[in-house]
Amino acid sequence: MDPATLRTPSSGAISQQCHAELHALLGDRLSLSQAIRAQYATGEAFPEAYPPDAVAFPLTTAEVSQIAAICTRYRVPMIASGAGTSLEGHITAPEGGLAINLARMGRILDVSADNMDVLVEAGVTREQLNHDLRHQGLFFPIDPGANASIGGMASTRASGTNAVRYGTMAHNVLGLTVVQPDGTVIKTGGRARKSAAGYDLTHLYIGSEGTLGIITEIRLKLHGLPAAIGAATCAFDTIGGAITAVQQIMLSGIPVARVEFLDEAQVRACNAWSQLGLPDKPHLFLEFHGSDASVAEQAEMAAEIAADNGGEGFQWATAAEDRNRLWKARHNAYFASKSLRPGAVVWSSDVCVPLSHLHEAVTAVHADIAREGLLAPIVGHVGDGNFHVLFCLDPDVPEERARAKTVYQAMIERALACGGTCTGEHGIGLNKREYLIQEHSADAVATMRAIKQTLDPLNLMNPQKIFLPQPQPQP
Amino acid sequence: MDPATLRTPSSGAISQQCHAELHALLGDRLSLSQAIRAQYATGEAFPEAYPPDAVAFPLTTAEVSQIAAICTRYRVPMIASGAGTSLEGHITAPEGGLAINLARMGRILDVSADNMDVLVEAGVTREQLNHDLRHQGLFFPIDPGANASIGGMASTRASGTNAVRYGTMAHNVLGLTVVQPDGTVIKTGGRARKSAAGYDLTHLYIGSEGTLGIITEIRLKLHGLPAAIGAATCAFDTIGGAITAVQQIMLSGIPVARVEFLDEAQVRACNAWSQLGLPDKPHLFLEFHGSDASVAEQAEMAAEIAADNGGEGFQWATAAEDRNRLWKARHNAYFASKSLRPGAVVWSSDVCVPLSHLHEAVTAVHADIAREGLLAPIVGHVGDGNFHVLFCLDPDVPEERARAKTVYQAMIERALACGGTCTGEHGIGLNKREYLIQEHSADAVATMRAIKQTLDPLNLMNPQKIFLPQPQPQP
Repeated sequence: MDPATLRTPSSGAISQQCHAELHALLGDRLSLSQAIRAQYATGEAFPEAYPPDAVAFPLTTAEVSQIAAICTRYRVPMIASGAGTSLEGHITAPEGGLAINLARMGRILDVSADNMDVLVEAGVTREQLNHDLRHQGLFFPIDPGANASIGGMASTRASGTNAVRYGTMAHNVLGLTVVQPDGTVIKTGGRARKSAAGYDLTHLYIGSEGTLGIITEIRLKLHGLPAAIGAATCAFDTIGGAITAVQQIMLSGIPVARVEFLDEAQVRACNAWSQLGLPDKPHLFLEFHGSDASVAEQAEMAAEIAADNGGEGFQWATAAEDRNRLWKARHNAYFASKSLRPGAVVWSSDVCVPLSHLHEAVTAVHADIAREGLLAPIVGHVGDGNFHVLFCLDPDVPEERARAKTVYQAMIERALACGGTCTGEHGIGLNKREYLIQEHSADAVATMRAIKQTLDPLNLMNPQKIFLPQPQPQP
Repeated sequence: MDPATLRTPSSGAISQQCHAELHALLGDRLSLSQAIRAQYATGEAFPEAYPPDAVAFPLTTAEVSQIAAICTRYRVPMIASGAGTSLEGHITAPEGGLAINLARMGRILDVSADNMDVLVEAGVTREQLNHDLRHQGLFFPIDPGANASIGGMASTRASGTNAVRYGTMAHNVLGLTVVQPDGTVIKTGGRARKSAAGYDLTHLYIGSEGTLGIITEIRLKLHGLPAAIGAATCAFDTIGGAITAVQQIMLSGIPVARVEFLDEAQVRACNAWSQLGLPDKPHLFLEFHGSDASVAEQAEMAAEIAADNGGEGFQWATAAEDRNRLWKARHNAYFASKSLRPGAVVWSSDVCVPLSHLHEAVTAVHADIAREGLLAPIVGHVGDGNFHVLFCLDPDVPEERARAKTVYQAMIERALACGGTCTGEHGIGLNKREYLIQEHSADAVATMRAIKQTLDPLNLMNPQKIFLPQPQPQP
């Protein structure tokens, strides 16, 4: 980010009095150490580092509320974080201030098998939650690659491989506890599966990236573990064949639970990193949930569609360990890609397009990557029209990043031109602010800004994120 | 509504200049006729009438925008409406002003089979849409009993019998065109199936009941018509048996498409109105969607659960005409109930509770109805925990309404006490404003009000709805 875009004056510095109040509240759960601050200076895959002035580790909603009240009194920016796995610079502190890390708020407060819901603190991670649920016949399906925190996933409207069947965080949160900038705690939503009572604050906070308030508790919908699960891989000679198969599978109404595309480079990476032993060709990874009969029926229909589009070697993985190995390999796509080029930094981006435009979107970016001579595997949750490009860049060759940026920009422009979005699941953060207006129009973004201004009048909640700074009036 | 709660001064009157500008824009699509105004003085089942000062019938978003700009300039309240089927007083004009009826904006603008989405104007009704889609293998599942407009359904976050499988309006809208109070037109959302780009304005406007802006166009998700459909009815000796069966069906993971509960009074009403010929007992109506094999499997599992809970005579309706007769009878529950007592007015209310509390919620209200000696059939989308009570009241016996209110209040109090909502799908309107704070807390409602104040600073958009007037500061 160009430092010139930083708002002046930087208001982040924490005064002695403010520090004293925070310290009285938190004791050694407030850190000024440079090493700790450096950990909250950047997320995954974000190239620049803006450390906060201090880091707080609250244990309860009440503590977060008190922290917010203090920070508001002293005009200190607040940057909430969880597992630190965000990809668009969400947790950096370009104006300094206090990083509020919720990772220690890791309690699963209330599992209700009868209502298929669970109340968790924001720091609970998705793997921790599913581990805890494993004996109750229930699971939480949203699975971004990383072992992210539920609070972070809600804040960025995360999704993952199961979203094609089970929806995203937007579809799986029943209610939130939110600490507002002045410390007021509100609860949104409820336990009913649906409600028509008043404005939908839950969805307003989901995806707001910590810019309106801090999510401290989340009530999630859970799903019953399917009686039967079948996974499959299928190789294609061309990207076009794989994508066309996906489009036909979706239109056929097969309730596929996962359908992931990996281009040849990504398959090579996963073969090397996770010893998958697949042919070096574009692939689909699929999963079907249901009864034994229904899973078999779904797989048969999908296999037929794949074969019609040149798919070969439809491989079943019915044993749990084989399925787990497959999806672990898929979730490790980022690290696998990184390993293709020792010393590389990976710049991961995502777009999402209407399904009818997926073919052209993927083939165009694939051609652009080849033209620019880049190593950039493509992998995606293609049932939703969502895909990622993992640019593997030599950090010592800035010109490579410039070439990657050309590809990246064209990919986003094409996504927006066909009614898609500049980000299906990563969020805006610092990286995609310039595309927000292009996607939603200046008037719609003005409405978003008006809401921000109303709910965070001092602009203390994760400042600079989502919105580009507005030009200051000339003196 | 107590007239004392009306805001003073009533700002509704339309000045001569304002009328002249609106007339220049709309010609004879602006009406001052008392007969027309009376049609927009009340919705269905709302007991009081507050006519607007005039009614506008725009044909395009651009016209709605111009109307809004004029109304804002002259400080005239704007009350949008569609098919006029809302149940909580949403379309009445307690402060006068201009009713803006969008029923003539009835064009289906763009059906995309490849993306399974459709762009419609707000006045398109759900039946019109499904009629138009019938040859394309697609359908739009949300079905409130009435043939409501899509704009109205979005504005009230409507749902209906299919929501248990396909979700509510909150889950099936991809994006909106919204006219803001000053006439600015914004588009929210997009055509991608998911997005993490900025604040979720789409969900903010869905369910906002016309209090933030006027929804003029909606892009909806469509669903593939299932290859096979099977419906069934099943009688139970007790309410408890029927509800327990529903809870077990939901927990078993059967992807039931519809599961409706009708108590004995409602079955009697539907038998009389729609000649169903069912035994006068509590019933479940079910529907299953999928492949032939999957529908058969689902039905078999559900029948077994029903039998375990005392269900008798699991009756299949496989022929389309039989199924249609069944669901038409279900959708006519309101009129059927009304017919049980000639001359009665029907006061329909809904709550939604967590599934584990459904049994106690339904049996408690059933007992209250009996205790008060009222005729009030119960019917509900019980897979979601949502049910309705249709109080059939003699309009000449005010004391009956008072007894009904006792039952109604206790039902809502119990729903809120167990984490449910005061309305699953009807909305707040004028009727349920007092419960909004009880459900969401004063602080959360203050956040909703802050958003209202920001996006509608002159309080011109459907004033009085959702929020009780705030006490005026004492002079």
